[in-house]
Amino acid sequence: VVVYLSRKKVSEGDNVVLLGPDARKYHITVQNGSSKVKGVGVFNGSRIIGQEYGSRITIGSKDFFVLRPSIVDKIETLQRKAQIIGPKDASFMAMHCGIGPGSLVVEVGAGSGALTVALAHLVKPDGKIVSYEMREDHAKVVRRNLAATGLENFVDLRTADFSAGTDVTDADAVIMDVPEPWTLLEQAVGALVPGGHIATYSPTTNQVEKTIRALREMGLVEIRAFELIQREMVVGEKGIRPSFEMLGHTGYMTFARKVL
Amino acid sequence: VVVYLSRKKVSEGDNVVLLGPDARKYHITVQNGSSKVKGVGVFNGSRIIGQEYGSRITIGSKDFFVLRPSIVDKIETLQRKAQIIGPKDASFMAMHCGIGPGSLVVEVGAGSGALTVALAHLVKPDGKIVSYEMREDHAKVVRRNLAATGLENFVDLRTADFSAGTDVTDADAVIMDVPEPWTLLEQAVGALVPGGHIATYSPTTNQVEKTIRALREMGLVEIRAFELIQREMVVGEKGIRPSFEMLGHTGYMTFARKVL
Amino acid sequence: VVVYLSRKKVSEGDNVVLLGPDARKYHITVQNGSSKVKGVGVFNGSRIIGQEYGSRITIGSKDFFVLRPSIVDKIETLQRKAQIIGPKDASFMAMHCGIGPGSLVVEVGAGSGALTVALAHLVKPDGKIVSYEMREDHAKVVRRNLAATGLENFVDLRTADFSAGTDVTDADAVIMDVPEPWTLLEQAVGALVPGGHIATYSPTTNQVEKTIRALREMGLVEIRAFELIQREMVVGEKGIRPSFEMLGHTGYMTFARKVL
Amino acid sequence: VVVYLSRKKVSEGDNVVLLGPDARKYHITVQNGSSKVKGVGVFNGSRIIGQEYGSRITIGSKDFFVLRPSIVDKIETLQRKAQIIGPKDASFMAMHCGIGPGSLVVEVGAGSGALTVALAHLVKPDGKIVSYEMREDHAKVVRRNLAATGLENFVDLRTADFSAGTDVTDADAVIMDVPEPWTLLEQAVGALVPGGHIATYSPTTNQVEKTIRALREMGLVEIRAFELIQREMVVGEKGIRPSFEMLGHTGYMTFARKVL
Repeated sequence: VVVYLSRKKVSEGDNVVLLGPDARKYHITVQNGSSKVKGVGVFNGSRIIGQEYGSRITIGSKDFFVLRPSIVDKIETLQRKAQIIGPKDASFMAMHCGIGPGSLVVEVGAGSGALTVALAHLVKPDGKIVSYEMREDHAKVVRRNLAATGLENFVDLRTADFSAGTDVTDADAVIMDVPEPWTLLEQAVGALVPGGHIATYSPTTNQVEKTIRALREMGLVEIRAFELIQREMVVGEKGIRPSFEMLGHTGYMTFARKVL
Repeated sequence: VVVYLSRKKVSEGDNVVLLGPDARKYHITVQNGSSKVKGVGVFNGSRIIGQEYGSRITIGSKDFFVLRPSIVDKIETLQRKAQIIGPKDASFMAMHCGIGPGSLVVEVGAGSGALTVALAHLVKPDGKIVSYEMREDHAKVVRRNLAATGLENFVDLRTADFSAGTDVTDADAVIMDVPEPWTLLEQAVGALVPGGHIATYSPTTNQVEKTIRALREMGLVEIRAFELIQREMVVGEKGIRPSFEMLGHTGYMTFARKVL
Repeated sequence: VVVYLSRKKVSEGDNVVLLGPDARKYHITVQNGSSKVKGVGVFNGSRIIGQEYGSRITIGSKDFFVLRPSIVDKIETLQRKAQIIGPKDASFMAMHCGIGPGSLVVEVGAGSGALTVALAHLVKPDGKIVSYEMREDHAKVVRRNLAATGLENFVDLRTADFSAGTDVTDADAVIMDVPEPWTLLEQAVGALVPGGHIATYSPTTNQVEKTIRALREMGLVEIRAFELIQREMVVGEKGIRPSFEMLGHTGYMTFARKVL
Repeated sequence: VVVYLSRKKVSEGDNVVLLGPDARKYHITVQNGSSKVKGVGVFNGSRIIGQEYGSRITIGSKDFFVLRPSIVDKIETLQRKAQIIGPKDASFMAMHCGIGPGSLVVEVGAGSGALTVALAHLVKPDGKIVSYEMREDHAKVVRRNLAATGLENFVDLRTADFSAGTDVTDADAVIMDVPEPWTLLEQAVGALVPGGHIATYSPTTNQVEKTIRALREMGLVEIRAFELIQREMVVGEKGIRPSFEMLGHTGYMTFARKVL
């Protein structure tokens, strides 16, 4: 019998998801002692400690499953200072930039750290995200979010201005979520290994156009821009259909590669 | 100065991309000696060997850049036996299943191995993809594609019938690209760690509905289905607009998690 | 100078739109005397009567434009009993069914009358919509909505069960917004002129599939199904982008033509 | 028994559609005598003359249905000089501009006349399309297409430059499919009745943005821009799914209304 990974049990201090009726999720940090969670009620953390992940517990009259937060859970429950880059766009950019275990990635404009968390998850344990965030208030949130998701060791967060230059060289990718990415392309290219990938994330088509024209002028290759429209399918009594609610526009993703 | 990765030069036997004018790509294996590539012409591989990745070489009257194939290049140039799962869907499923470095993933229905390649790229070097493919002709293609992409060490390819059961337990995710995934859910759940993720990939809504109803009946949680519609943006003289050509439907992705 | 139409001034009893700041619209029936409209304030209708359509009036501290309701306004402000068929789908179905001035159309399942209003607008003054609505409470709403939009003369509303048969023959189109349109195809075909069009409107893919299979079995031709995804574009300080809010799924439209 | 319309039989000179196996359509003008149609074969038109529309005839070994061309058929088979405005966009613009029987519409930039045909179909018999097309070669195509569709009496086609001004006043709508619609807004507004609608059709977001900013500056109201993404659904052995082929981007539609 092949067993690659070992089962884990809930320990004190773990961040867990309580999945309740109606698919509602409650993110808590497990503490040994009584605590009150809005929507869940009052319960003693000792009832969860030592349980296997995936177990069911009853609190009051409701049943909850104890789950380890998935990376999507982590992204979607981050503390937010600004619009975040969600799972559909984070995973697409990572794939198009060839990011995987061991990658060295420069992130410019960490925002609340949603993309930072997604990327750190993908490059750990040997890779690194060097993340630039000029605003101290945003950086504070990123730091808190990295700690909450346990990914802080894979991120080198810098409250610095990327436009002033960087000491990073030979990065596999530079990903920028800033209002004017076309002004930072020279620094981005400087930080990249030949063949390395640039990605920018922008809500407006004006930004995409300016970025593409600047990338062309600088002689980068494989310049392409995409957006992903996400639809959820729902199953009810009468059958299956796309959801009446729909995620609207998020952002355009522009890609390019550095050559010599 | 921080330098995490080292630059690499082209060696004999490397799979490289020659990026030509008009953004045409030519995938070749570098050989020391003269070879003829359709669309490129005749050239001697020794001219590339030892060059830095990202360099430009002139063959005949055309200029080409020598690039390391990206993971997207690898997926898009695989030898194909059937419709493949492309980058947008592969990365979304991986993210929603929490797949990253070290993950143990069971794949059911490898097809031509496109998803296998994408997943192996994400779990290496410590994770593993246990991939089931019943058809020997498909498995042969997968084996060739894994060798071509250098990811064979991270995949345990089995020409076996997953419905007969598996010795894998505690997998982080089971991803199935088969016509009737709802018939294999018991085996899939058996292979998963509690809290582990199931994903299925299906072109029709009938398949999605049957899968969702079966997942509900079996008591799995966080059951959701999505599709992603990809649009490319193009920049011309008159400005920017979505492409007149559009990638049509690919497949629906259905997700669920195992609980105890 | 060519003048085809005459300008109109506001008369007592007219249904008008007051377009206020922030693009808010208020639909009122003009009365000679003081009235209070929520969001507008108290004003005397005599101030509007005799004004040209398109004029601006000041009520309290706000400016309003006096507009004739467009057909889209009419559809979007109908009293509703159920989900309505909106402008994008109504106009597409009308076009695909070749509906225009003088058309004879059978509508099955009037709902709140949104499609009825759109169709009556297109076939007037010589065409006719024969509209079946089994539920008396819905028919009441349709009647009120037709009166409010001034289109009642072009609709023959019947609180009757279309499955029991119809005396209409040689209709140009039969459009059905009912849960099980495939059970009514025989009656629909019977009501159509050879070459006439059938359209059905359904939220789920199961309904579309059953309808298409039944249409094929009955030997109808040009069987096709579509959906339209509507995106709004917004212009702000930073440029132009798709709206972050998006209209989700509405309904699938299935079409076919009768042959002999 | 209610009979609103009379059945029609095929006459010499009629434009008919022969609908063959595999849903292939052949547009022919019925002539009394032998003719050869590519894909159909050789047949004598006298075999069709006098037949009811919707009849089946056998030519060679294949069966064909004789159909009156629908308005969608007419639009899709026009002779083309440029990209046309298709049914989904033509019907949406007409609805958003409130166009119906009797409307007076100014069209600027007729192109090949696809929108002209769609609009003429909707305003006949009492309305009028005043259509401007500067290029004589395009106007020639429009004239031929109007004749072929039998709608020439409802269109006043002018090979003139709309920017030089128009004698039309009090139009219900002005619809422009030109590269720089923002340069013609003054003339468009001059031609409109108060409350009348402007619509512009543009492939790029730059054009939409410029148009919207100009409309705002001129004080027009109800300024909105949309695009429609069309998906076809197909039913096969394994069930129903969106088509793997998809209509890509066509054009953005921008709307506004004139006030005093």
